[in-house]
Amino acid sequence: MDNLSVKEPLIYRRILLTIDEDDSESNTRAFRFAITLAHDYDATLGIVSILENEDINIFDSLTPTKINEKRIDLKNAVDNYVKMAEENGLKKVEPLVYEGGDIDDAILERVIPDFKPDLIVTGADTQMPHSKISGTIGPRLAKRAPVSVIVVR
Amino acid sequence: MDNLSVKEPLIYRRILLTIDEDDSESNTRAFRFAITLAHDYDATLGIVSILENEDINIFDSLTPTKINEKRIDLKNAVDNYVKMAEENGLKKVEPLVYEGGDIDDAILERVIPDFKPDLIVTGADTQMPHSKISGTIGPRLAKRAPVSVIVVR
Repeated sequence: MDNLSVKEPLIYRRILLTIDEDDSESNTRAFRFAITLAHDYDATLGIVSILENEDINIFDSLTPTKINEKRIDLKNAVDNYVKMAEENGLKKVEPLVYEGGDIDDAILERVIPDFKPDLIVTGADTQMPHSKISGTIGPRLAKRAPVSVIVVR
Repeated sequence: MDNLSVKEPLIYRRILLTIDEDDSESNTRAFRFAITLAHDYDATLGIVSILENEDINIFDSLTPTKINEKRIDLKNAVDNYVKMAEENGLKKVEPLVYEGGDIDDAILERVIPDFKPDLIVTGADTQMPHSKISGTIGPRLAKRAPVSVIVVR
């Protein structure tokens, strides 16, 4: 092992926080960890939520009006987290709202290529609304993402 | 949401790093992240590796001599990481070597209750030798552990 390179600090510079609509305990803790790390290492923080609209009507019988309400709720949730991050002294915070398709694929195929995070922070209970795949997204991202993933509890 | 508590820093105080015998890229990066975080937040770092010996003879046709060699290799690997962490200025580093049973269960049922980590750091490629379960342990721990887990790539 190369002792020199192995002892170099490993610092994340672009942190992607996934949130859902619920202010669950793990969501809140994920947010706290993300802003702590972004603050202390001067990283850029992206805060993302995803509205899966592909099969939304089938699964929840939502009318267009209700879908739009969901969209606005999600946008507001992201904006609220961005605002709190900025109030906490962060200068580089980006709201990211995506729509459509499968949640995992949206993150893997669109959000990651767009935002280029080196770390994804997700709450252990984070579940995107109306996801076709049951369960939380963290462990799945931990398995499939090409970058580091922390599941916060 | 309670804006006061949500903005409090979230800092990990007891970090558990899982390693295997291989100096894979992700193992090295996991080590680097663990020592960075432990250093910068004055956390206690436990470095753990596990020798699954329950079915080792069946799976690898190892003789007692070979099992003992594996045991020594693993102990040396852990000690080497501990030494590097200490050379990097860490004062609170604990070597942890466990044996027996299923790798996930050993971590969940014995290492976590013993060491009481609040964060587990694991490389994306970390595979304990002779594990009965194929694949890497990170995503499984991310799903099952009662504490935060980061899978480092």
